[in-house]
Amino acid sequence: MECHNWLRLKRTVRFGDTDAAGVIQFHQLLRWCHEAYEESLERFGIGATEIFPRPEWSRGTPSDEQAAPDRSQPALTIALPIVHCSADFQRPLVCGDPLSISLQPRQLDPGGFEVIYRFACAGQTAAQGLTRHRAITIATRQGCGLPAAISTWLAASRPGAEMIQEPEQSQPAQA
Amino acid sequence: MECHNWLRLKRTVRFGDTDAAGVIQFHQLLRWCHEAYEESLERFGIGATEIFPRPEWSRGTPSDEQAAPDRSQPALTIALPIVHCSADFQRPLVCGDPLSISLQPRQLDPGGFEVIYRFACAGQTAAQGLTRHRAITIATRQGCGLPAAISTWLAASRPGAEMIQEPEQSQPAQA
Amino acid sequence: MECHNWLRLKRTVRFGDTDAAGVIQFHQLLRWCHEAYEESLERFGIGATEIFPRPEWSRGTPSDEQAAPDRSQPALTIALPIVHCSADFQRPLVCGDPLSISLQPRQLDPGGFEVIYRFACAGQTAAQGLTRHRAITIATRQGCGLPAAISTWLAASRPGAEMIQEPEQSQPAQA
Amino acid sequence: MECHNWLRLKRTVRFGDTDAAGVIQFHQLLRWCHEAYEESLERFGIGATEIFPRPEWSRGTPSDEQAAPDRSQPALTIALPIVHCSADFQRPLVCGDPLSISLQPRQLDPGGFEVIYRFACAGQTAAQGLTRHRAITIATRQGCGLPAAISTWLAASRPGAEMIQEPEQSQPAQA
Repeated sequence: MECHNWLRLKRTVRFGDTDAAGVIQFHQLLRWCHEAYEESLERFGIGATEIFPRPEWSRGTPSDEQAAPDRSQPALTIALPIVHCSADFQRPLVCGDPLSISLQPRQLDPGGFEVIYRFACAGQTAAQGLTRHRAITIATRQGCGLPAAISTWLAASRPGAEMIQEPEQSQPAQA
Repeated sequence: MECHNWLRLKRTVRFGDTDAAGVIQFHQLLRWCHEAYEESLERFGIGATEIFPRPEWSRGTPSDEQAAPDRSQPALTIALPIVHCSADFQRPLVCGDPLSISLQPRQLDPGGFEVIYRFACAGQTAAQGLTRHRAITIATRQGCGLPAAISTWLAASRPGAEMIQEPEQSQPAQA
Repeated sequence: MECHNWLRLKRTVRFGDTDAAGVIQFHQLLRWCHEAYEESLERFGIGATEIFPRPEWSRGTPSDEQAAPDRSQPALTIALPIVHCSADFQRPLVCGDPLSISLQPRQLDPGGFEVIYRFACAGQTAAQGLTRHRAITIATRQGCGLPAAISTWLAASRPGAEMIQEPEQSQPAQA
Repeated sequence: MECHNWLRLKRTVRFGDTDAAGVIQFHQLLRWCHEAYEESLERFGIGATEIFPRPEWSRGTPSDEQAAPDRSQPALTIALPIVHCSADFQRPLVCGDPLSISLQPRQLDPGGFEVIYRFACAGQTAAQGLTRHRAITIATRQGCGLPAAISTWLAASRPGAEMIQEPEQSQPAQA
């Protein structure tokens, strides 16, 4: 079963997600997909600093008491830009609709992965999104292998993965 | 004290909230303010259908089994457009920063109210937002009194309000 | 050739389109696609009021001197929601990049059409988007035929169409 | 008079700028403000690379034929974050409304400036925005003086400035 807590998220449709037709703006769904991907990594135990670029001055050192706790990271060397995305819309979503989001991450090859996001409301699929990512070395923008943290998340997210191993990283970083 | 659970929210800075300077885009903060206002009403027990417009076809009837549970509402007659907003930025926020948001709603006159939103990270104020709303009759766009649900929320949110009365509506609608 | 002036647009990447990796946020591209579709209709001579829903109070009458000139439209009966979209990203785009956008609209069947959007910078394709729309009757949300204005735009936008006929509507509504 | 072509801009309200109330989302106005500020600098002759941060790999050299023409810039040392913003809304704006935007930039002190943006539709003010910026050294995030290009733009934008001098930089960089 694929009931990992980092692959089952919730969000509510907000007023600013809608347009004058009263339903969600189509491209907001893809914003939600990326936020779900970020939240999934966070729940799995992978900090934003491990994956997403930040300005140099925001990376504190262990002795930097001013910096927030999770800012003491070296500069990233790998980025994971989206090379393809898509979305399908089955039912209209309106302001206040409570959504459950289920994620299916999948490694495609040594340097790429994709995530399928299913959005359901009142038990029925309302929309589905997909993002496809490719690892590149930031300095050269050449393809490279996935960061270790992403590989671990992908392996643990495979259907049936939890029966074989329950890695320590699967403890959520925050409630 | 002003520690009502509907006035203390949390959110995490997401990658899409940032720009090429590595910090949040200033106008996203005002989107967060509105989402915090919506979440506060929701936690207080006021459904989105009571306050925010929806398309006519989405308002089901109790016998409409296709409609989501909370869609059986009559058409709204009052809107609460924002007539003024502002924001102040004290510290830069970067991707992954965990934020606590505290809201201070306040009635201004029979037809208007404002909400101050304080965003803190690691115990320090990072930014502050303000939205000022005015009640209007949707059909005529003339000023009118606040909807009863908003008045209740404003009264219960006043500093010290909980010592005098704890209205039933203050139970959160969802966890 | 497909060099109609309503199928060749320009825009510049703005700072708010980027994220902390310094490149455009992927979902902004799909927002650009929809704005290009709207601008294309506008240049072709189709007013926003003919296609996009507006609040009832904003529809003035010819004698309504307060209303803006193009607000004297009856309520829409047909909506054109997006049922599918996708995007592919070939090259990174950064703040300030000047883009040329070429649109290829295409009717799919009596009630549906799609638009392909090619984004080029410095002569090279940087990204491609696609939106697929389906006509529905707003009141019932059942499928229906395309609005006449959209059919005219689709016919005039076909490759080679201008050799056979140059409809009057193809004069741009504004420069 | 303040009729410089870099202080008078146009844009059209797009469908994605609206919400389910049929009018523009309040925070979009502040996005428009920033885009107007960027377009104003561009028309004045200040390239995005001079003011807005970009990733290191995107800065080409004169011999780099792959890079777009305006990418051959050194790394920025000064950023201009917004420390305060506000907006006032007088009239509702709906999809398709043509807007004229007039900007009033003003230096506040050696390290700060603000811009007032007036949005008019059909000759009547619909909304007004304000952004206040402060110059900081990126590496240290300490206050510093404004970049020379911004000072020139501010001086040329002062009411009456064109009667005294019409600097060469005031020729628009692009039509």
